[in-house]
Amino acid sequence: MKIVNYRVGNRVRIACQEGEQIIDLNGAYLSLLRKEGKIRAEQIAEAFIPADSVGFYQGGEESIELAKKAVDYMLTEASEEEKQAWVFQRSDVKIEAPVINPSKIICVGHNYRDHIKEMGREIPKYPVLFAKFANAIIGPEDDIPLFPNVEKLDYEAEFAFVVGKRARNVKEEDALDYVAGYTIVNDVSARDLQFRTLEWLQGKANDGSAPMGPWLVTKDEIPDPDALEMSLRVNGEERQRANTKNLVFNVNRMLSYVSEIMTLEPGDVILTGTPGGVGHARDPQTYLQDGDVVDIEISGIGKLENTVRKTDF
Amino acid sequence: MKIVNYRVGNRVRIACQEGEQIIDLNGAYLSLLRKEGKIRAEQIAEAFIPADSVGFYQGGEESIELAKKAVDYMLTEASEEEKQAWVFQRSDVKIEAPVINPSKIICVGHNYRDHIKEMGREIPKYPVLFAKFANAIIGPEDDIPLFPNVEKLDYEAEFAFVVGKRARNVKEEDALDYVAGYTIVNDVSARDLQFRTLEWLQGKANDGSAPMGPWLVTKDEIPDPDALEMSLRVNGEERQRANTKNLVFNVNRMLSYVSEIMTLEPGDVILTGTPGGVGHARDPQTYLQDGDVVDIEISGIGKLENTVRKTDF
Repeated sequence: MKIVNYRVGNRVRIACQEGEQIIDLNGAYLSLLRKEGKIRAEQIAEAFIPADSVGFYQGGEESIELAKKAVDYMLTEASEEEKQAWVFQRSDVKIEAPVINPSKIICVGHNYRDHIKEMGREIPKYPVLFAKFANAIIGPEDDIPLFPNVEKLDYEAEFAFVVGKRARNVKEEDALDYVAGYTIVNDVSARDLQFRTLEWLQGKANDGSAPMGPWLVTKDEIPDPDALEMSLRVNGEERQRANTKNLVFNVNRMLSYVSEIMTLEPGDVILTGTPGGVGHARDPQTYLQDGDVVDIEISGIGKLENTVRKTDF
Repeated sequence: MKIVNYRVGNRVRIACQEGEQIIDLNGAYLSLLRKEGKIRAEQIAEAFIPADSVGFYQGGEESIELAKKAVDYMLTEASEEEKQAWVFQRSDVKIEAPVINPSKIICVGHNYRDHIKEMGREIPKYPVLFAKFANAIIGPEDDIPLFPNVEKLDYEAEFAFVVGKRARNVKEEDALDYVAGYTIVNDVSARDLQFRTLEWLQGKANDGSAPMGPWLVTKDEIPDPDALEMSLRVNGEERQRANTKNLVFNVNRMLSYVSEIMTLEPGDVILTGTPGGVGHARDPQTYLQDGDVVDIEISGIGKLENTVRKTDF
């Protein structure tokens, strides 16, 4: 299932995308429950499939399974009236990032084996972890803001996973039980701010610096997260290419490692690092400019494309 | 006003402490509204003074002013029945941190002028920013966990402020308009994890690594945040002492600087850094052990005291 958030007016609600249709998950489940004659349909739907994304991920696999049944119902048995209420055309709504307001966004540096070796570095014993906050998240239809105080804006293609179950001290071999699914994140970095000090946060936490999407693919659709091809282009020119088989800390190791340090909550987003080819490492260095189009493609997930836009504030 | 969260059973609600009394703010305002004959008292109370802390700070100064009126009412005119419902003895409840689940916790390194000079360093041009997440927050009655994977647990006394109004590109001179109030945070650091890599996050983001309290003092009670004396003791022995007049980046500069990088939201917590005297910098280095009692005192705020406890998980 492809999980998205969609916006109509001021409402942002969790949904799934099937072809060109956007199906509201809370509404689909509500319809199914009513069909089943449940008098407290609204309260049950709110409990198991609330409209907000973090609430939905808190429901874990149980909520994802219920969502699948509800979507099946909407696509087959539902009345025209129900469909009119809860099924939208892709082109009629705005799609937002598949997670909004997670409690944590955790990133890792230097994680692609071939790139580390090519740079003549040692394979690291520990992942280099750093943070973004929820203010960084924007969706697949949003522009990447280029603020007046940033001159060296850069891209970083990243394969990311979203936590689906509270996780603490999880073993590597059990880690995938704690994953809801996978998505693409562009770890947009303001290099000038990032390297003002040794700690990278200020170059990583800018508003809009984590374009995410185009959706979350639930983990059942990606049986092997360690064999995904990833590439990034700027205005169509390829700049990064890698395969997740080259990750030093793959999904299992990352989730396990981070869960030994802190409790991970449903909806938390973990980025697995970027391969070689960022603008800052090119010769000459090249940074993102107003109007540049950055697209990232990961096999089994899809394509995330955003345009860079100068903004005054 | 001294803002706290208090717990009775599973409920954690925002309150204020007056002497030995804990006054539930949502309940106090509800009582006042009912006394005023408002039929929709419950909904109005929920809108302006919800029971959760971030919601309360979102209300800004308007909510703080309403809370003051409500507390006045509870302490003077309220009926015995109302007091029984909403006023508690300090000893009958558990006090939690004054902010729970903020969207950001931002910390700064090397910020005390005298300590920087004494170390022979240059006064930094930019603050060194790093992050914690909400999982780190514990309250004034909680123990600081010493996990099996941490050997070098350290304290850091810090003066902190809490954002009271959405802030973006705020000028230094206007910064205090965006502050709700002040509190004490112990920036507990696992030095072994912190220095595994150059990025400090993994030594800073452990569960329970941000003891906070004993309350938030609203800013009207601290007219000059740049003249507060701070000290820290371990088992009664003084280890750190400083005055906020020595901050390179004081409250105004910190809020302004961070707001140029990211949008700050009500409830966000900003720590202003620690002075010299941490265990890691002592000769010989000394770290916190099971049973150690760490207390931090800041003039105009109060005292935060927590005990270190070994824990298996």
